[in-house]
Amino acid sequence: MAIVFAFLWFSFFTLLSCSVSIAKIGPAFPSSLIRPEQLSQLATKNQLYQTKYFTQILDHFNFNPQSYHTFQQRYLINDSYWGGAHKNAPIFVYTGNEGDIEWFAQNTGFLFETAPDFKALLVFIEHRFYGKSMPFGGNKDIAYTNASTLGYLSSTQALADYATLITDLKKNLTATESPVIVFGGSYGGMLAAWFRLKYPHITIGALASSSPILHFLNVTSPYSFNNIVSHDFRSESESCYKVIKGSWQQIEDRANQQGGLDVLRKSFRICKKVDIVYLESWLLTALTYTAMTDYPTPSNFLNPLPAYPVKQMCKAIDDPSTGNDTFAKLYGAANIYYNSSGSATCFDLEDNSDPHGLSGWSWQACTEMIMPTGGNTEESIFPASEWLYENRASYCKNMFEIEPRPNWITTEFGGKDIYRALKRFGSNIIFFNGLRDPWSGGGVLKNISKSIVAIVANEGAHHVDLRFSSKEDPEWLKDVRKQEVNIIKTWISQYYSDSEYFPS
Amino acid sequence: MAIVFAFLWFSFFTLLSCSVSIAKIGPAFPSSLIRPEQLSQLATKNQLYQTKYFTQILDHFNFNPQSYHTFQQRYLINDSYWGGAHKNAPIFVYTGNEGDIEWFAQNTGFLFETAPDFKALLVFIEHRFYGKSMPFGGNKDIAYTNASTLGYLSSTQALADYATLITDLKKNLTATESPVIVFGGSYGGMLAAWFRLKYPHITIGALASSSPILHFLNVTSPYSFNNIVSHDFRSESESCYKVIKGSWQQIEDRANQQGGLDVLRKSFRICKKVDIVYLESWLLTALTYTAMTDYPTPSNFLNPLPAYPVKQMCKAIDDPSTGNDTFAKLYGAANIYYNSSGSATCFDLEDNSDPHGLSGWSWQACTEMIMPTGGNTEESIFPASEWLYENRASYCKNMFEIEPRPNWITTEFGGKDIYRALKRFGSNIIFFNGLRDPWSGGGVLKNISKSIVAIVANEGAHHVDLRFSSKEDPEWLKDVRKQEVNIIKTWISQYYSDSEYFPS
Repeated sequence: MAIVFAFLWFSFFTLLSCSVSIAKIGPAFPSSLIRPEQLSQLATKNQLYQTKYFTQILDHFNFNPQSYHTFQQRYLINDSYWGGAHKNAPIFVYTGNEGDIEWFAQNTGFLFETAPDFKALLVFIEHRFYGKSMPFGGNKDIAYTNASTLGYLSSTQALADYATLITDLKKNLTATESPVIVFGGSYGGMLAAWFRLKYPHITIGALASSSPILHFLNVTSPYSFNNIVSHDFRSESESCYKVIKGSWQQIEDRANQQGGLDVLRKSFRICKKVDIVYLESWLLTALTYTAMTDYPTPSNFLNPLPAYPVKQMCKAIDDPSTGNDTFAKLYGAANIYYNSSGSATCFDLEDNSDPHGLSGWSWQACTEMIMPTGGNTEESIFPASEWLYENRASYCKNMFEIEPRPNWITTEFGGKDIYRALKRFGSNIIFFNGLRDPWSGGGVLKNISKSIVAIVANEGAHHVDLRFSSKEDPEWLKDVRKQEVNIIKTWISQYYSDSEYFPS
Repeated sequence: MAIVFAFLWFSFFTLLSCSVSIAKIGPAFPSSLIRPEQLSQLATKNQLYQTKYFTQILDHFNFNPQSYHTFQQRYLINDSYWGGAHKNAPIFVYTGNEGDIEWFAQNTGFLFETAPDFKALLVFIEHRFYGKSMPFGGNKDIAYTNASTLGYLSSTQALADYATLITDLKKNLTATESPVIVFGGSYGGMLAAWFRLKYPHITIGALASSSPILHFLNVTSPYSFNNIVSHDFRSESESCYKVIKGSWQQIEDRANQQGGLDVLRKSFRICKKVDIVYLESWLLTALTYTAMTDYPTPSNFLNPLPAYPVKQMCKAIDDPSTGNDTFAKLYGAANIYYNSSGSATCFDLEDNSDPHGLSGWSWQACTEMIMPTGGNTEESIFPASEWLYENRASYCKNMFEIEPRPNWITTEFGGKDIYRALKRFGSNIIFFNGLRDPWSGGGVLKNISKSIVAIVANEGAHHVDLRFSSKEDPEWLKDVRKQEVNIIKTWISQYYSDSEYFPS
């Protein structure tokens, strides 16, 4: 039985199109993890939110005839906890990332769990060009035709979508005085932070979880990401780290031997013929995404994972019963990620299905999102390699006939200069980062000012704070969420007190 | 001899295309006044600045193939006062408005006069689609073809142009650590304020002079503008106000009489046949722009004006030698504006020359800049009338086949909510307004926070602070400029002290 070979989409496309090694490209953003058992505790999916659509303009910054085209933007809304417009009760908005908004909503338990206390309206807005929010008549095939249609997929257009939708929604609900807080994780967290910075008249604050707004060219080192992956494994066991680090050469050596690919196929239970690049990226994906989602409780990303999965992988690698058999050890680790149920009999490396509709990220990574993650130092758990801008550029040329604009994001939103710039500008942003998360190297890890603050959890992984809570949550995680709630409460009460002086 | 009939462009086009009364549309932005005698004191024009060009991208927010087109953006630079990159000496940037940048540079004496003390580099950046900064091969005829080409003329694109150009320029000068302050008057002042709000990582502060960022639909009353014009005249003399107020009916009555148009033609020394709408708008222009530029010293806008020109107009109207002859009185007033040299023998109402290249504003006023200025209450010096959005919309439909987006600017930059929003967000903006300026009704007239401050001059007119100083300047004006300089000094010294903690 073939198992879904998930979330390698960006790397996968890259490999298919120009054989750039995955280690040089790095993985895409993962997103929140769903824990279905908790969803069912809260409500059935239908009660969790209602689905609505907003007529959105295609291009906010341009006024040519094409820019006036519209599309239906999906948003999910839950008013069951809301205190109502007459009480100016708050509105919590999730600024959607690069995928189906239902998936993000179902994975952002933090909002559902805190809404009752805040009497908040919940709104999850889908990012243009993802899920059902497709320009060009709602038809993804047409929207994704080429650079002429995909051109409208950009972060600034998405932010302007959110501004327009929120403004209109508040008007329709006669809730113009209700404070809006924005939330997001990963790319959604970047959008939440940027939204607060660019639209302070629309939102009073942002919780930006695991948002690597500094993970751009010439700001964060391309080695940072895999340094953290390496550290995650090494922190569990030095031998685990060494086995993985040494395995790549062994795989290459074996592949070059007569009949070697067949040995590899059997060792890793690959269903069909093995291509060495696919195999390596299959392993890299397992290691990278496990590091990213090294949560303290069991989770379900695309495949289920146990609590502390990096520890579990190292346990498999250090398992004395595998002796000196590196492939058996590595297979054991991969099995944690790809086959926790134990029911898979073989793996299909070429399955590039995309159940959450994330493929638009490869366009974004070719235009503005030049986030270097694939460099490897001599200390890396992956083979030493350089991240080269030229590789990205040539991939993008091949894929979309497009040239990236590597300096645009830092021009538009700031780069390493933001600490100085925001010390006396702006307010009310929480940057959460877990240091187990390979993206954390591009996050804001220090307080910038009294109200632009960093919450850093040594043991945390990718936007763990936004996940549904669990009885098994460690104290540090409970404490992070408590801090976040308390800070948001101060924003809201400050807003109410300011409103007495500045009624609109 | 025909005298240049200047700066009626927006109203003028409106009249030509759909005969909407000018009183309902209101005038365009005027810009700074030039005083050539002071220019020559400083330097010859060639020494005032060097002209350079920057290769600018056509569309910052979009990634379709067309967006990658480039154009040559003009900027003017003067480094004769600069302390240099090695000293991190400041950079003063003028964010160009809706016209030829040379005209603005030559009219912004404040920067030339303060640069030596600050050891500042001066940079004046031309706004896209104005002057020589024409997309589409530098050819205005092509750039202005229709909505497909003009679509790229927008405030957000202009701000992104400035961000891109400044970032690149600093890099080329190895001056990345030099603080940048932005300056602008009128629309340029709006851009300066917005630039500080959207690009705090690029500029440390903004002096936004006479920038009516609140003069938008549903934020500032459409009566505000002409209320202030009326007040300006009434404050000089009640009889002056009454004569002007009563004149419109007399003009209409006379026009409807047999031979009446001929009487009007003679009374106002019109060269050719009189059209009543043209005559009214010719008079309205004289009154409105004189109110706007009611400066305490002689000035030269497009035609020269004496000091306190509103007072001079009222003097002409109240002149006992004209008895009860309303037309003679009004002619005397118009003569102040159109014929201070006394050499004109007749006036050409249909001259719509545009020496400063301002015509792009009619596009901006049809897309995002929906700034209602043409309403008149019963107390107005002009005939009572309503400002109706529908009139603007139908003009724009006729003119450009385009529909305005009346709520866009307040969605993107904030509207009446900015007092509350910016109370605890942002810093380092000076909003200067003179209350004689009809645009001041849409300005920020109260301090928002400790460092987002309003400087209000009761006797001030449109961005009077940015003009060249003069020995005859009144104390209040000297004091305004002194305050501005002192505030900017605190920004810069704060920046230098912050830089010790946050070197980039």
